[in-house]
Amino acid sequence: MCRWMAYRGQSVLMEGLLYKTEHSLIEQSRHARMGVEPFNGDGFGLGWYGQESAPGRYRSLMPAWGNRNLRDLAAHIRSPLFLAHIRATTGTPVQETNCHPFGHANWLFVHNGAIDRFHEIRRELLFAVDPAYFDVIEGSTDSETMFALALTFGLQEDALGALERMAGFVEETGRRHGIEHPLQMTLGVSDGERLYAVRYSSIGESRTLFHSADAQALRALYPDHELVHSIGDEDRAVVSEPLGDLPGVWVEIPEATALIVQDGPDEQRAFRPRVAETVA
Amino acid sequence: MCRWMAYRGQSVLMEGLLYKTEHSLIEQSRHARMGVEPFNGDGFGLGWYGQESAPGRYRSLMPAWGNRNLRDLAAHIRSPLFLAHIRATTGTPVQETNCHPFGHANWLFVHNGAIDRFHEIRRELLFAVDPAYFDVIEGSTDSETMFALALTFGLQEDALGALERMAGFVEETGRRHGIEHPLQMTLGVSDGERLYAVRYSSIGESRTLFHSADAQALRALYPDHELVHSIGDEDRAVVSEPLGDLPGVWVEIPEATALIVQDGPDEQRAFRPRVAETVA
Amino acid sequence: MCRWMAYRGQSVLMEGLLYKTEHSLIEQSRHARMGVEPFNGDGFGLGWYGQESAPGRYRSLMPAWGNRNLRDLAAHIRSPLFLAHIRATTGTPVQETNCHPFGHANWLFVHNGAIDRFHEIRRELLFAVDPAYFDVIEGSTDSETMFALALTFGLQEDALGALERMAGFVEETGRRHGIEHPLQMTLGVSDGERLYAVRYSSIGESRTLFHSADAQALRALYPDHELVHSIGDEDRAVVSEPLGDLPGVWVEIPEATALIVQDGPDEQRAFRPRVAETVA
Amino acid sequence: MCRWMAYRGQSVLMEGLLYKTEHSLIEQSRHARMGVEPFNGDGFGLGWYGQESAPGRYRSLMPAWGNRNLRDLAAHIRSPLFLAHIRATTGTPVQETNCHPFGHANWLFVHNGAIDRFHEIRRELLFAVDPAYFDVIEGSTDSETMFALALTFGLQEDALGALERMAGFVEETGRRHGIEHPLQMTLGVSDGERLYAVRYSSIGESRTLFHSADAQALRALYPDHELVHSIGDEDRAVVSEPLGDLPGVWVEIPEATALIVQDGPDEQRAFRPRVAETVA
Repeated sequence: MCRWMAYRGQSVLMEGLLYKTEHSLIEQSRHARMGVEPFNGDGFGLGWYGQESAPGRYRSLMPAWGNRNLRDLAAHIRSPLFLAHIRATTGTPVQETNCHPFGHANWLFVHNGAIDRFHEIRRELLFAVDPAYFDVIEGSTDSETMFALALTFGLQEDALGALERMAGFVEETGRRHGIEHPLQMTLGVSDGERLYAVRYSSIGESRTLFHSADAQALRALYPDHELVHSIGDEDRAVVSEPLGDLPGVWVEIPEATALIVQDGPDEQRAFRPRVAETVA
Repeated sequence: MCRWMAYRGQSVLMEGLLYKTEHSLIEQSRHARMGVEPFNGDGFGLGWYGQESAPGRYRSLMPAWGNRNLRDLAAHIRSPLFLAHIRATTGTPVQETNCHPFGHANWLFVHNGAIDRFHEIRRELLFAVDPAYFDVIEGSTDSETMFALALTFGLQEDALGALERMAGFVEETGRRHGIEHPLQMTLGVSDGERLYAVRYSSIGESRTLFHSADAQALRALYPDHELVHSIGDEDRAVVSEPLGDLPGVWVEIPEATALIVQDGPDEQRAFRPRVAETVA
Repeated sequence: MCRWMAYRGQSVLMEGLLYKTEHSLIEQSRHARMGVEPFNGDGFGLGWYGQESAPGRYRSLMPAWGNRNLRDLAAHIRSPLFLAHIRATTGTPVQETNCHPFGHANWLFVHNGAIDRFHEIRRELLFAVDPAYFDVIEGSTDSETMFALALTFGLQEDALGALERMAGFVEETGRRHGIEHPLQMTLGVSDGERLYAVRYSSIGESRTLFHSADAQALRALYPDHELVHSIGDEDRAVVSEPLGDLPGVWVEIPEATALIVQDGPDEQRAFRPRVAETVA
Repeated sequence: MCRWMAYRGQSVLMEGLLYKTEHSLIEQSRHARMGVEPFNGDGFGLGWYGQESAPGRYRSLMPAWGNRNLRDLAAHIRSPLFLAHIRATTGTPVQETNCHPFGHANWLFVHNGAIDRFHEIRRELLFAVDPAYFDVIEGSTDSETMFALALTFGLQEDALGALERMAGFVEETGRRHGIEHPLQMTLGVSDGERLYAVRYSSIGESRTLFHSADAQALRALYPDHELVHSIGDEDRAVVSEPLGDLPGVWVEIPEATALIVQDGPDEQRAFRPRVAETVA
């Protein structure tokens, strides 16, 4: 059971959100509150957008909590859009190629959850990956397979539609193999422009996912809170667990829901896995 | 706060004690029950005696729980005397040279605990190390410094006396610097013949330490328990936390006490830090 | 371009062959003489048979030359049959799951060479792997794919036949994709009883491979050489490069040839890739 | 024998100098031309100045050549002043705390060379380190000891003077121990404003060191060379080995010489080790 966070907004030093909150992601690597496991020590990864066209990535198979490089990089790199992930493996090897975010071209992808009895359907899922995206797969996780399938189903043209088709395909394949609840997931996905966050599970009891509340509402709620007043109108964080305890700051994303964080008003809509007629 | 275990007795595959008990050391790396921290993910180490004169060591900066090499080695190496350690750093870097057991010639040394405010007295403690043993120090932990000091105070001639002089010197140095309770430790030390286990702290509230009960008594207590009957008369394990919940199997080592595990009857005696007149 | 060695014979400490020869495998990790690359620093691995039914493995993504754990393990583990491999990646990630030997049940497999333009045919080769062996694949190398294919083609029943069918299938697949010389390989394979060594390449200019000369002949050649006289009649080493310069000790294995090292006389025979009628 | 490079000038993406030259530093990690060893695979490090007061650092115990994180970071971080180092250990452990650059406050320090018979005088050199700087030492190299001594001798007030006193102290200590030629070094040191480069050895045959030629002169020499014309008047690189073969671009720094790269004209002066009356 992993943990992740994503941010889109003003360009900020990444350490602010990764380290300097009450219950930061790096703190969660040691002491998760809402997870199945109390800690996430099987590697981590960071992906960020900057001035270059492709995002940067830093992934490591070491635990995040004691990693000095991560601390240093987070204290020196500014970004208007980044995703971070801490991993707790469900069995696949601890190696950099199994660390999130996975990437292809300008896309980044993080996942918390699992495909149930993945090993039984891994081969079939892999075979459905478009040959054009097969080389995206360097590791052995269910998460990376989901990313390659999402690319196969058209992620680059229709992000949420492709994620729904990916989820539908995984569920359909799983159920054909007698797996009752094949998919459990929260997803963070970005093309460098928008940030897509999804909360969904076949069983209807998904891993937790929150977004930060509207900045204007927060300022009204906390007229004297300095940090709250530094939040810009367009700044938005999405997190597996709230980064602090201030009431009203974190809003749970409902079951089977997708959030699109973008310039102007963000959008929230139902997430409905769909079985594609044919693989795109 | 680390965790360790040591074994002396019949030659056994190490995996039996490291993995195959109810609450094994490797399980403790994820879910310690009695520790200050619930897990120990900052590296591990294994030292064992075999047919060669010097002991073998395998140390890694990765968490023990997911380490496939450790699992494989433990499943293939038999030893009549070994020590294993899982680390939770109190601040010094996560690197192999900071992983226990520390070694010199035929000696191995593991430690759980800390020297309080070590950074303030590290330099002074290092300067007291005999130049002949200075190169033993490759890392930056308080534990390794304690080992080098124990060698300095005559570990190879009079093991427990040297450990008492080391503890006395650390306490005396700490107190001169205004540190009220300088030393907290359980130690596991061996020369390949005997196993020395020590439980001591300046404050008189030491980290937990247990030894396995007498094999004959255990067989009388559990006349039908197969595993219990496989324990030989001379087999003894010493552990930071009991490896299982069977009543009567684990005996707490008292405060300020040293245990000598050896051929024939083991010895238990008071451990009294002493200030040496001069460095040996 | 990797380097490997294998040994079958009297039970010996592995360090003798890995470290203590003039031009040992670990020395080759820094200074290969016959390789395309002068060094092999992208990880290593060791697999050995002992008293347990499954072989032990120790693999690491670090260079072999400075690895203290490897040195210690080699100095403490005795084995009558082991394989060691040092890796120079041709592009796939440096991670433990890409390090040789690959293993399944009682089998170990090492490879030097490459499948030409592997990325173009990787997906097709993977799809030919029997679902029963698909989970053997944890990494992303051509070598591991070859191992999974060999298992698919019956390695456990007819080792050399399966290797010939694997090679034939790779060549046939490659040629269908317009790859002129698809396969370049020397292989070391064992089930714990026999050691199979193969030298083959589509182009007919294979990577070097040598076996140690007959012990009796060597003793006649060097009547006063102490080390030579310690070699038992059944001891045999197979190496990518000679471990020393003593004339007559190392015999080149011819092109397109397989060697079976076993109790009694070893066998050498032609290695002829074959296209299987159907996947087994 | 290590290799390093440093750059001061216009803010640039670090990958340009680290990867995109004919004979770049990362290429040198595989194929050094002028070194004692043909490759440098025992870790690497990168230190850069940006908008924050303290420099950023990324160090790893893996070889530089295959490191994807390094490639990604170099492709995303711009800096007007950075130092990079690839390591070939002379015996001390391969660990991040032994990788250059070493750092303290706003200072960074890289070294190529060695203190001869360091182990014999390590303890004495360490004891001369000011207690205020003792905690700078986290690893076990001669280089880090030299940095801590330079801080002790006043690096932050008088950089070159302190380096001369450090060199003098090392030579004096070594000679007292019968070491004929105690010191071999090229140094790259920065406070974020200036870049100090030093070439010196007790024997008078120092490791190679070069600086890039004057930009104006280069433009006159190569009126049609696009890359040459992108070099700003204040841009300067200092390197262990030339990054390319274009005649006139790289100028050897003479024996026993220090170069100060700064705003306005750079300075070159004699470097003369001095024995300090007392430790500062």
